[in-house]
Amino acid sequence: MTRRITILGATGSIGKSTLDLVERNRDAFQVTAVTAATNVEALADIVRRTGARLAVVADESRYADLAELLVGTNCRAAAGEGALVEAAAGDADLVIAAIVGCAGLKPVMGAVEAGRTVALANKEALVTAGALMTDAARESGATLLPIDSEHNAIFQCLAGNRAGDVARLVLTASGGPFRSATAEAIGAATPAQAVAHPNWSMGAKISVDSATMMNKGLELIEAHYLFGLPSKRIEILVHPQSIVHSMVEFVDGSVLAQLGSADMRIPISYALAWPERMPTPAQRLDLAAIARLDFEAPDPDRFPALRLAREALEAGGAAPVVLNAANEVAVASFLAGEIAFPDIAQVVHEALRCADYGAPRAISDVLEIDRVTRDRAKAMMTASCS
Amino acid sequence: MTRRITILGATGSIGKSTLDLVERNRDAFQVTAVTAATNVEALADIVRRTGARLAVVADESRYADLAELLVGTNCRAAAGEGALVEAAAGDADLVIAAIVGCAGLKPVMGAVEAGRTVALANKEALVTAGALMTDAARESGATLLPIDSEHNAIFQCLAGNRAGDVARLVLTASGGPFRSATAEAIGAATPAQAVAHPNWSMGAKISVDSATMMNKGLELIEAHYLFGLPSKRIEILVHPQSIVHSMVEFVDGSVLAQLGSADMRIPISYALAWPERMPTPAQRLDLAAIARLDFEAPDPDRFPALRLAREALEAGGAAPVVLNAANEVAVASFLAGEIAFPDIAQVVHEALRCADYGAPRAISDVLEIDRVTRDRAKAMMTASCS
Repeated sequence: MTRRITILGATGSIGKSTLDLVERNRDAFQVTAVTAATNVEALADIVRRTGARLAVVADESRYADLAELLVGTNCRAAAGEGALVEAAAGDADLVIAAIVGCAGLKPVMGAVEAGRTVALANKEALVTAGALMTDAARESGATLLPIDSEHNAIFQCLAGNRAGDVARLVLTASGGPFRSATAEAIGAATPAQAVAHPNWSMGAKISVDSATMMNKGLELIEAHYLFGLPSKRIEILVHPQSIVHSMVEFVDGSVLAQLGSADMRIPISYALAWPERMPTPAQRLDLAAIARLDFEAPDPDRFPALRLAREALEAGGAAPVVLNAANEVAVASFLAGEIAFPDIAQVVHEALRCADYGAPRAISDVLEIDRVTRDRAKAMMTASCS
Repeated sequence: MTRRITILGATGSIGKSTLDLVERNRDAFQVTAVTAATNVEALADIVRRTGARLAVVADESRYADLAELLVGTNCRAAAGEGALVEAAAGDADLVIAAIVGCAGLKPVMGAVEAGRTVALANKEALVTAGALMTDAARESGATLLPIDSEHNAIFQCLAGNRAGDVARLVLTASGGPFRSATAEAIGAATPAQAVAHPNWSMGAKISVDSATMMNKGLELIEAHYLFGLPSKRIEILVHPQSIVHSMVEFVDGSVLAQLGSADMRIPISYALAWPERMPTPAQRLDLAAIARLDFEAPDPDRFPALRLAREALEAGGAAPVVLNAANEVAVASFLAGEIAFPDIAQVVHEALRCADYGAPRAISDVLEIDRVTRDRAKAMMTASCS
């Protein structure tokens, strides 16, 4: 049976990996709708390869170009936020939600409210709007399948088990490039040092998040909303080889772990084929060749972002939105050479301390808190908060 | 809802751990029948603690003692093989099959033919009668739940997955006390050295099996019959810390692993509560404290038992029975100081080479091949096979 797939963010990294898998299994999947932020050329190429019937570019100024490129296809061109949400909510067996950043919030919510099965690669959806998303999913009957390697690992470990038998979740963290660095070295870290991630090839922003370990803090918040466990039952464990992608401990003392090579096609394929599995070209795990897996407790002193994220999760309401927005602004400033590495956590800390927003009651609230926090954080980086 | 439990081999190590768990959860379980080989005092004590209604001692000469000890209880005493089978096949929600050795074959088959859910700790049932047992289970609708930590780990990893999505099973092996020993040192190994298992507290025979790695060879055969995969899709991986109890690789490249402390109450509890889980007092896994897990390929030259077991599995028919019987006799001779450590594998090799039995068609055939092989192997240790 062919599964009809919508890919939100088809031209990005997750989109490309999804298409790679889909094109290797043409009988199993039919891509029905695809979206991109601005790259209409790549989007049109995907339409021609997949036979998608709807292509949406977020940037409305690129609409005419997209329409021109799609002449001679059976694919309708559309543009703008409304069209993104329309694509997300449209009929499909699976929606791959791979738009980066808060731009993904409304489309993801559109898919969730339409009761779709949503393969979630957009971190912001759960970090900043976790309660809204999971409430909407409960109401509409939507299913959320995590694509993040850590959450996908936990999802796999939970399959076939009762939620009530879970004792705790263990999110593994590579520890980033500064895992073994002294506090002094971390204090003097340059952007070039911070983006040198040891295991995964990633963009600059997420690489810095790995260096501060804020990425794990954000994943902690995602895990809370995805799996419904309180903060104190979600642990973080440093595992430098990134082979064990995460674990679940059950009440009997059993721990189930998902392992694999660092290839996002594995978790994406899991979402594509769920509740079955499909072959992938990912390299097979050879533990005898890897020889050794290490584990250590994270150091909250050298990596204060972990503590900040946990505090934001436990505070709830707008705090995770503020955490995420302030972090993004601070990381951009760090990458631009404007602030030092430890200032990233300091900016987030100050932003959380100064935040006075009520809990968001709609995606529009989330976006407003996000916007105001960014403005405040930028101002904060030249003055102290008022 | 109370589950009615029959414990075959109640006075042994698995029986004791089962009773420990049952007594911690008195509302969940009712022990209905218990058996022992000879220890009627311990058996009567278990009857008084659990309120079991049937107690069977295998050794008929102990019947009068057992009956005497049970005066004043509501428990019926019985003795002998027929009574063991009757206890195994009697009404119960779960039969814990923990009789050691070939003495367990007929009772296990009794439970399987009666369509019971059988928690299997008796290795011989699958090593020597795997095809008979699994055929009978298919016919009767019996369910086999493995209690061996490795097979229980695989069973847990398979839950929630389709059999068709499994690429291979990975049985982990501690490597035993001679994992890092030279071939020369292994050649001169004493019984005292061979029984010093690094991770699990076990009896002398199984400790020697761990030193030769024949235990892993026997588990390979069990895994084949339990999970229905061919020899070439079941790998053995040396993992000295015995924390990862075994793994399953799926077609997508995902590997699921079950980890835990070395406490048999974890897999026993899994069988007791299956398909749910129940709390156990087992120590929680602390990977940050353990710090490091190692993996290496097994060395077929220093550990020829692995090769012999794989050959026996692939030969099928009577070969696994011969492997098991010859190994038991050889290990006993080694422990008695009669043969050298490498002779164990040599005896097994010779026994397999000389074996000329057809495939067993009933448990009685298995027992006959077992008996003849033992006699031949004993003779072989003084002469060469004829």
